[in-house]
Amino acid sequence: MNCNTMTKEQLKEAYNGLNDRYLALKSQNLKLNMARGKPGADQLDLVSDILSCLVDPAECFTDGIDARNYGELAGLPVARAYWADVLGCKPEQTFLGGTASLNLMFDVISRAYSHGLVNSPRPWCKEETVKFLCPSPGYDRHFRITEFFGAELITVPMTATGPDMDMVEELVKDPQVKGIWCVPKYSNPEGIIYSDETISRFANLKPAAPDFAIMWDNAYCVHEFDGEFVPFADIIAMCETAGRPNMVYEFASTSKITFPGAGISVLASSVENIKYFTKLFGVQTISHDKINQLRHVKYLKNKAHTLEVMKRHASVLAPKFQVVADMLEREIGPWGFAQWNRPKGGYFISLNTMPGTAKKALALCEEAGVVMTPAGATFPYGKDPQDSNIRIAPSLPPVAELEKAMDVFCTCLKLAAIEKLLSE
Amino acid sequence: MNCNTMTKEQLKEAYNGLNDRYLALKSQNLKLNMARGKPGADQLDLVSDILSCLVDPAECFTDGIDARNYGELAGLPVARAYWADVLGCKPEQTFLGGTASLNLMFDVISRAYSHGLVNSPRPWCKEETVKFLCPSPGYDRHFRITEFFGAELITVPMTATGPDMDMVEELVKDPQVKGIWCVPKYSNPEGIIYSDETISRFANLKPAAPDFAIMWDNAYCVHEFDGEFVPFADIIAMCETAGRPNMVYEFASTSKITFPGAGISVLASSVENIKYFTKLFGVQTISHDKINQLRHVKYLKNKAHTLEVMKRHASVLAPKFQVVADMLEREIGPWGFAQWNRPKGGYFISLNTMPGTAKKALALCEEAGVVMTPAGATFPYGKDPQDSNIRIAPSLPPVAELEKAMDVFCTCLKLAAIEKLLSE
Repeated sequence: MNCNTMTKEQLKEAYNGLNDRYLALKSQNLKLNMARGKPGADQLDLVSDILSCLVDPAECFTDGIDARNYGELAGLPVARAYWADVLGCKPEQTFLGGTASLNLMFDVISRAYSHGLVNSPRPWCKEETVKFLCPSPGYDRHFRITEFFGAELITVPMTATGPDMDMVEELVKDPQVKGIWCVPKYSNPEGIIYSDETISRFANLKPAAPDFAIMWDNAYCVHEFDGEFVPFADIIAMCETAGRPNMVYEFASTSKITFPGAGISVLASSVENIKYFTKLFGVQTISHDKINQLRHVKYLKNKAHTLEVMKRHASVLAPKFQVVADMLEREIGPWGFAQWNRPKGGYFISLNTMPGTAKKALALCEEAGVVMTPAGATFPYGKDPQDSNIRIAPSLPPVAELEKAMDVFCTCLKLAAIEKLLSE
Repeated sequence: MNCNTMTKEQLKEAYNGLNDRYLALKSQNLKLNMARGKPGADQLDLVSDILSCLVDPAECFTDGIDARNYGELAGLPVARAYWADVLGCKPEQTFLGGTASLNLMFDVISRAYSHGLVNSPRPWCKEETVKFLCPSPGYDRHFRITEFFGAELITVPMTATGPDMDMVEELVKDPQVKGIWCVPKYSNPEGIIYSDETISRFANLKPAAPDFAIMWDNAYCVHEFDGEFVPFADIIAMCETAGRPNMVYEFASTSKITFPGAGISVLASSVENIKYFTKLFGVQTISHDKINQLRHVKYLKNKAHTLEVMKRHASVLAPKFQVVADMLEREIGPWGFAQWNRPKGGYFISLNTMPGTAKKALALCEEAGVVMTPAGATFPYGKDPQDSNIRIAPSLPPVAELEKAMDVFCTCLKLAAIEKLLSE
């Protein structure tokens, strides 16, 4: 059944059978969504007791601070200590943001443009060109931030151990290359954990730009759903040791620990960077939501307890990833035109289908009521040169719906691939 | 006792008596703060039941939306309807931000710089010069945002009915004048309510700049502490009628309704502006804290109930403002060197002391342990050309402390004024 060894006749026959199946699925008027790394309601139910963990006004006081009032721009000391515990850095290396770490990333880049970073010779808006490295497949929202500010996005291929570091080391010799987007643990979408060597090569980068910024989005730092917690290195300390303490900006949030969009976020970096940004952030706000910070610290307590909470999520997520992986293996595997990963954490499965067919396959999906992340989204400017990569986000639909959605998806993948072979 | 009619001898005698009093106060090692419009703990206690008004996960659903999950970038429909009710505009004219309206103001100006507003011929960073009008005395954090982005700040005097509109109408003929900061109700710090005529002249402005922005910070829209609610005009509808629907950006928040820094904020403007900014804001965040939005809507319900809640605050605030007004009248009035307002809402009392003595008076205060908003803060660049205006923020200290702080403050005002007269 490997499509590469099938005759035209066999392909045509297979196509007709698949098309019948497709039309049958389409007639069900499905409305299913595997587009975004959105937790399902079942998962949110498991952590909804956070709503009642801070109801007594007498508990709003911590370290002599009234969390209900203005103040503590960088965050409550207990919240800074919480993130330091989770990330393995120091409390004074943290700044608590609002609900979204994405907003902190945006603000760092936005301020780099308007005012420059600590070691910038000038604001980035005064540079002739700003180039930014985008390991791909990667996260569309990252790429969009730098695109929004007019940077030239440069694709760096992903390998099994992280971004292609030979290429990164070569590219950073260009002083106009100002930074790189990274998701070091369970990378979005490939689910790769950067190897120790990759992390070490990052910390020891010697970019020509003195204000080169490693945007280290540790979004899935404690997000195992299969197996035990995988420890990760403290890149901040490593950059300090390597003599470039201000080179890395680490981000994390509780968006996929408690509630997406109603959690707390953190920027972690050198003390000098944190001081600089606390000053800049002081222009835009008096302080972030300390009630929510305190609520989260009361609920999550520390890293050890957070890992316990993450096991609850795993109990819901693991079966969903299992469905996707099983169906891909059964329905797509034998045809021999696609490859995918099988991650143990994070929120995505990255699939490479037959080059030139991803867009077509997802258009068919949409027509049948199954919404996926648009083809190309995982590459700079939303353009996958191979038209091959597809990001699958299994977290939102319940298992029963997921099976239906995957049935549609697998059928569409095959239809698009065989159509391509027939047209050649 | 009017110091303007006293002999040098009398002034010297008065100075010595006041100095003795000052030294006695100083020896008490006070630590009092009248620097910021920070509610007191007594006031926060009155609204702390908001902590327990959303504890049941089943109540997190509204209009078919799960408030715990990602989505609804512009805010929950119920939250948009809430602000439309409070501000007298339409729900589709609102965008819910994070905890701070200041951050929304910053983001509007920041995006005007990097990308331009709806009617901008180009981003403001590409303009030769950007000038911004700053009615003064005004709010230092407003001025700082435009200063941060390199605008030239132009002082416009405040009158009893709002900014000097003759001057505003003249200044906006300059196409480089891109906007103005306004606090239309209980202006910070003067406590003035803009007159109907002033508001109408604002709505009917014909600035040379097509992207002129009225930054309408309605921070104290429901913040009466003395007397009944004072209705205010819907500037958004008025600008629409006058043919410049995109000229005004209104802001408000619950920072002084529920918890400062843990409330919800809103940007209200034309539908076109809201659509434009929703698109821009989509680059920096997926959605703001909808749990907190829902919590607030459950707690505050609507405008009518919000006004009830504000009466609780008034019960705490009114006596504090009374203490300040009474002491100024008794201790400063007869000396004839200072004028101040007596507002019925808002968070401040603005005092003009003898020109050339504000800085000195506040330095004496600080030395005696009483922290005030720095002299000059109410003017662009923190420089009061008269060195006369002082903002008094009576909300934070309990009444007993406030009396002590005002004792120090009045003593220092008199010392600085008499010292000046003696040196002439």
